[in-house]
Amino acid sequence: MENPSGQLQQELQFSVAERDALYKAIYSRRDVRGQFKPDPIPDPVMARILKAAHHAPSVGFMQPWNFMLIRSPAAKQQVHELFLEANREAREMFEAERKPLYSALKLEGILEAPVNLVVTCDRERAGPVVLGRTHDMAMDIYSSVCAVQNLWLAARSEGVGVGWVSIFDPQKLKQRLNLPAQVIPVAYLCVGYVKHFFTEPELQSVGWRDRLPLQDLVYFDYWGNSHPEQEQALLSELARPGR
Amino acid sequence: MENPSGQLQQELQFSVAERDALYKAIYSRRDVRGQFKPDPIPDPVMARILKAAHHAPSVGFMQPWNFMLIRSPAAKQQVHELFLEANREAREMFEAERKPLYSALKLEGILEAPVNLVVTCDRERAGPVVLGRTHDMAMDIYSSVCAVQNLWLAARSEGVGVGWVSIFDPQKLKQRLNLPAQVIPVAYLCVGYVKHFFTEPELQSVGWRDRLPLQDLVYFDYWGNSHPEQEQALLSELARPGR
Repeated sequence: MENPSGQLQQELQFSVAERDALYKAIYSRRDVRGQFKPDPIPDPVMARILKAAHHAPSVGFMQPWNFMLIRSPAAKQQVHELFLEANREAREMFEAERKPLYSALKLEGILEAPVNLVVTCDRERAGPVVLGRTHDMAMDIYSSVCAVQNLWLAARSEGVGVGWVSIFDPQKLKQRLNLPAQVIPVAYLCVGYVKHFFTEPELQSVGWRDRLPLQDLVYFDYWGNSHPEQEQALLSELARPGR
Repeated sequence: MENPSGQLQQELQFSVAERDALYKAIYSRRDVRGQFKPDPIPDPVMARILKAAHHAPSVGFMQPWNFMLIRSPAAKQQVHELFLEANREAREMFEAERKPLYSALKLEGILEAPVNLVVTCDRERAGPVVLGRTHDMAMDIYSSVCAVQNLWLAARSEGVGVGWVSIFDPQKLKQRLNLPAQVIPVAYLCVGYVKHFFTEPELQSVGWRDRLPLQDLVYFDYWGNSHPEQEQALLSELARPGR
């Protein structure tokens, strides 16, 4: 059965080059903290990045997102204060041996990035009952997160870096941004051209945490059923380095 | 200031063709419900899709996800029963005038898709204190959602369709999948080759909801500040049809 829907896409398959380009974006995307350049982002580039975000999947086609572009130094400064406050609290939560490394880490580029971009979720965008959100009220927030990931990949393909800053008290951030009651800030992003992108995530390079072996994270038919005999071919593929 | 990090990527910029390929994936990705073919997905293809998911951003490099591949008809059947139960409840939540259309919609391909793929979030993957999750405990779940979006785009570039089914009682789904207490099911995905992809989201084609004008969703410096005079150039770009 199918829904009585519209036109069909011309192409079912991508070329190998097109597929490789997508994987290049996925593998070269980095969480940027310290490499922002002040150069403004031209309107056509910013528009392509925002349009990519707007074409994320959304539950019940709700499109619950807004995109708030913050370029005013005063507004950035106010948010940066919230980060500093939360980051002092955060440091105290780690065990003694991790505190020095945590303190040494550069975790945001709020003041340096030319654009701060807030991706929000309006819980009431489509009324109280939303197709697909009837049993899991978090689905609309997940839609906004999908928009963030589209935006992030699009930005990488434009040579633009993105860093997601999450070390805020969410309620204080919401207040400072003057968001209405039904709107939550899902992601606070620092956005701008960069001097370079690192080949590996910074937390991996500095020894904070290692990448986990993917073949240990995949289960078959039931939870915990890893490495079954008949899945050796797939597991070998998963264990192979590179894309 | 920068973290004392690793190697730099060779390429800052993508070629126009590479950038276009990413946008092609973003714009041609669909939420697939009714077009699945039974053909198995070859191991190298499934591996590329899962590796793309594994290279999503994650808070504190936590990589909180697992990927559960369900191919057993009995296991699919059990989950399908949960969907039917929730979907009957869901129908009753809509206003009378929407009930007939809701009932007519095909909303999942659980039994037809050769693979059902559960993306989870293990809240305890990296201990109780996670860098970047100290003030917003939902950040790890957002990481798993980013993995879903990477997976979805990768699948599209491989000619593989993905449909996200969210009409379940999350607690019952968790029980049926035998997930440990600290693991939540973030996304239940139907995955398989498809007969075709539609050009537009099905909910748009059937008249359930329209795409919102992006230029109305973008605010500048503060909430609600839309369409300021000095942003006309960017707003015109946002309003232009196409990528």
